[in-house]
Amino acid sequence: MFEQLGLIGCGLMGGSFALALKRAGLVKRIVGYSKSPSTTERARQMGVIDVEAPSALLAVSGADIVLLAVPVSATEATFKAIRHLVGPNTLVMDVGSTKRDVVDAARRVLRDSVGSFVPCHPITGKEVSGVEHADVDLYTGKQVILTPIERTLTAQLQKASDVWTALGCHVIKMSPQAHDAAYAAVSHLPHLIAFALINGIMGQDHGKDYMSLAGPGFRDFTRIAASDPQMWRDILIANREELLAQSKIFQQTLQSLEQLISSGSGDVLEVLIEQASESRAHWRMSSHKSQK
Amino acid sequence: MFEQLGLIGCGLMGGSFALALKRAGLVKRIVGYSKSPSTTERARQMGVIDVEAPSALLAVSGADIVLLAVPVSATEATFKAIRHLVGPNTLVMDVGSTKRDVVDAARRVLRDSVGSFVPCHPITGKEVSGVEHADVDLYTGKQVILTPIERTLTAQLQKASDVWTALGCHVIKMSPQAHDAAYAAVSHLPHLIAFALINGIMGQDHGKDYMSLAGPGFRDFTRIAASDPQMWRDILIANREELLAQSKIFQQTLQSLEQLISSGSGDVLEVLIEQASESRAHWRMSSHKSQK
Repeated sequence: MFEQLGLIGCGLMGGSFALALKRAGLVKRIVGYSKSPSTTERARQMGVIDVEAPSALLAVSGADIVLLAVPVSATEATFKAIRHLVGPNTLVMDVGSTKRDVVDAARRVLRDSVGSFVPCHPITGKEVSGVEHADVDLYTGKQVILTPIERTLTAQLQKASDVWTALGCHVIKMSPQAHDAAYAAVSHLPHLIAFALINGIMGQDHGKDYMSLAGPGFRDFTRIAASDPQMWRDILIANREELLAQSKIFQQTLQSLEQLISSGSGDVLEVLIEQASESRAHWRMSSHKSQK
Repeated sequence: MFEQLGLIGCGLMGGSFALALKRAGLVKRIVGYSKSPSTTERARQMGVIDVEAPSALLAVSGADIVLLAVPVSATEATFKAIRHLVGPNTLVMDVGSTKRDVVDAARRVLRDSVGSFVPCHPITGKEVSGVEHADVDLYTGKQVILTPIERTLTAQLQKASDVWTALGCHVIKMSPQAHDAAYAAVSHLPHLIAFALINGIMGQDHGKDYMSLAGPGFRDFTRIAASDPQMWRDILIANREELLAQSKIFQQTLQSLEQLISSGSGDVLEVLIEQASESRAHWRMSSHKSQK
């Protein structure tokens, strides 16, 4: 049981965490701060937080658990704002989609207190943002990746793991490097491709007409292209090294398929499509065994 | 009202058409043929067809409406098998995902009877195939693209349009060329990309681990990668010219984004992501205005 959650960033991710933590009976008081005072006020009016703080530092004051739910690019500035109140008994977590950059910022800024920080990436979200879409079940049944470093305190890592588990999450631990490599492949690259596909079509004379003819395959394939631009700008740049490496592999694979198509090599092409089709047909989301 | 439907190919697409035509009270008798006799038998046992024909020609004998629901690569051979029974009062349609190659085959094979053929592409399907998945509502509320040529008989074009409309479809007419260009962009290229993405990931040492960490964005983005290999081999090769042109535009757009990521040009990158995000957020499937 925690005394006080210091919530920095009262949007979709932060607000949903606050609601879930309160429902689970794990926290007595939630003090929230958002960059925009109107967001913080709305969060309090909605009952997502109990008290509005005028600064990130004041949200952390008295908190034994802190969640950073800000855009990845704002992480370092947030660490700077709160570092004087991060002690060995404070559990500090984030929800960022990239981890190496967050860990680097934590090392640089938190220094001796870096052990209190447990980097987290919950595999969840919505295409809409803002506290008005906060959902007490956003994290229920989802994977949460923890990427501790050698300096992370065992006690804080265990606490973080316990909190997410109590919210109904499936907790996985890996290194920040392994995390960023994996999500470059299965999340960041698909987003980049979806953005490029839409812009490539819309840049053509008949692009809008083409889009109007599209069906359910296109709908699902491009759903992630509607994601938040600022958030994704930050992610793609923060994880650029792994992302560009994955994009290179993808383009090489694409070009091999193109060559087979170009030369009409149907047999080999079919074998390769079959490999893709089988791999995808047998895949299941780890925390949603029943869903395709 | 038609006397007899000659159904060539009693799989998902053909079987669903037969069920819908019968439910609409538009046909008295359905004679079906499939390459595999066991499929034809199952179709009759399920009540999808009334009579099993031992050949495509015999399915067409006595038919005033004929539907070819065979893989695109089998279209020409099917035309050859039935051409002697295609008269000016027979309405012949197909359901192929590409149209220039089908129209070319029709011209070559049907010759003077080519006017009876109305090329059709219903924008529907399932990831599963076979008559056991036939669904009376597969076409309900969906778009159907008709791609008549200058020799198509007006009467047959009108009949085709009426049939699909009676099944609850939204009928659109365009040239085979325009059709193939549009679907290269919004269907064939997304499939090619999805196949390449999966194979690119699975070809890596940790590919399987990466896949196991993927979430709902990946699930939706890659759903089409599980499509039927033979069908997609045929489509990608049949429409290769338009597909490769679209793939080139896509790769150029992707590489422009990569350059911005590589140089850390966040502002321009955000503007371009915002363009994609806005375009996608405002897009709606034309026959499903309520669906995202």
